[in-house]
Amino acid sequence: MKLATVRIDGTTRAVKLDGDVLVDLGTPDVGTLLAQDDWAGKAAAATPATATVYPAAGADFAPVVPQPSKVVCVGLNYRNHIQEMGRDLPEYPTLFAKFADALVGAGDDIVRPHETEQFDWEVELAVIVGAPVRRARGEEAERAIAGFTVLNDITCRDWQFRTREWLQGKMWDSTTPVGPYLVTPDELPGGVRPALDVRLTVDGEVMQSDTTADLLFDPVALVEYVSTIVRLNPGDIIATGTPGGVGHARKPQRYLTGGETVVAEIDGLGRLENKVAEEKSA
Amino acid sequence: MKLATVRIDGTTRAVKLDGDVLVDLGTPDVGTLLAQDDWAGKAAAATPATATVYPAAGADFAPVVPQPSKVVCVGLNYRNHIQEMGRDLPEYPTLFAKFADALVGAGDDIVRPHETEQFDWEVELAVIVGAPVRRARGEEAERAIAGFTVLNDITCRDWQFRTREWLQGKMWDSTTPVGPYLVTPDELPGGVRPALDVRLTVDGEVMQSDTTADLLFDPVALVEYVSTIVRLNPGDIIATGTPGGVGHARKPQRYLTGGETVVAEIDGLGRLENKVAEEKSA
Repeated sequence: MKLATVRIDGTTRAVKLDGDVLVDLGTPDVGTLLAQDDWAGKAAAATPATATVYPAAGADFAPVVPQPSKVVCVGLNYRNHIQEMGRDLPEYPTLFAKFADALVGAGDDIVRPHETEQFDWEVELAVIVGAPVRRARGEEAERAIAGFTVLNDITCRDWQFRTREWLQGKMWDSTTPVGPYLVTPDELPGGVRPALDVRLTVDGEVMQSDTTADLLFDPVALVEYVSTIVRLNPGDIIATGTPGGVGHARKPQRYLTGGETVVAEIDGLGRLENKVAEEKSA
Repeated sequence: MKLATVRIDGTTRAVKLDGDVLVDLGTPDVGTLLAQDDWAGKAAAATPATATVYPAAGADFAPVVPQPSKVVCVGLNYRNHIQEMGRDLPEYPTLFAKFADALVGAGDDIVRPHETEQFDWEVELAVIVGAPVRRARGEEAERAIAGFTVLNDITCRDWQFRTREWLQGKMWDSTTPVGPYLVTPDELPGGVRPALDVRLTVDGEVMQSDTTADLLFDPVALVEYVSTIVRLNPGDIIATGTPGGVGHARKPQRYLTGGETVVAEIDGLGRLENKVAEEKSA
């Protein structure tokens, strides 16, 4: 199944893609859907014959989960990228946080804050949690994965490196697109450890291109690791890290500016297409 | 005013301390209270004559804000401690995150996870936000401070230093006491920049003792800085950093173990008194 949260008449609705229509699932967003028992059964049972439908073409996507209780992000996690940087493979995943207020929809503008001169991209495979778990292992961790989506971990590099903690470069308001769809593992090659081509372009120029099969810590391992530390709730998001090719590591360095369009895409999941808008300075 | 969230008959209620009673404020917790327009006026108007009251003695405190949309924590922020460590005063505050699932009440047990051998304390003055703000400056930042409380940023040092990002040592489930009361600035010497003695003891032995007057980045400056990056919502918490004396920096190092009682206290705000419980290993 492909599930989304779309904006309809000034509010949001959880929907399922069914051919060329979106079937209303009876809840305001995918997060509240996932909090229900047997969300998968309910979503599977919804049909155009029994529920409100909307055209899929031109849908206005909200963040696929608008209010996750946590967004946990992983640092270096692509083997190729780690090794090309001359680093040893890490023993543990590096984790940092985002808050829900950072999230925007798949087609929304990304507003570059006037306080940054180094506005960079990071396409990532994101895990969406579908069941409450703590210290999940093996099959329990696999079953806790509702599905996957695309996340662009837009980063203000100058703020990221102001201090030794990355957070202040990572949590800027309304700068992180996530969506368009939650795609369930049964639709993906590799299932809960999907092997998918991932790429990012800026105005059509390919900046990042890799495969999620190269992840050092795979989605199941990350659910196991993070849930050791803290309970994971339905709708929580784990962003699994970005491959090589970010603007800050390029020679010369390159950053996003107003008017550019950044497309973050993972085969089988969909694409985020966001125009960079320049904020009026204060 | 002194406001709290207390557990009553299996649910929670927002209350105001009035002599030896707690006056019910009509909402389930201080977070939902702060989200209302004119929360201060409504709380001021509540009296024992017109609302349900509960005895203050023996109150069972929940986290003063149980579900903040964000908890932003500050690293090194006490001048004495920075200078005794031989470091230069930083130009910018170091920020890291916690999620709401880390929070527990002022008298709750703190359960030491069996995965850590280095369970440490950090008493902190915490700011509670009372109005939605973005890029607040000056008086707007001052007015956005609903009040202050005490937070013990319990940290698993071994996990904090597994990687270069601190988060995984800081977000353990149900390990961060916060409360007991939100105390409004008008009750405090220094107002929105309170000058208060802060201390932490373990089984009565003083481990940390300082004054919040020594903060390098004061509460108003932190509201200005964090709200530059991301909107602050009513109920959001900014933990302002801890003074010297943590267990990890002692010689010899010292960590919390089962059966010990850790008391984190700030004059005028109140005290967190938490027993360390040992978790049954998996």
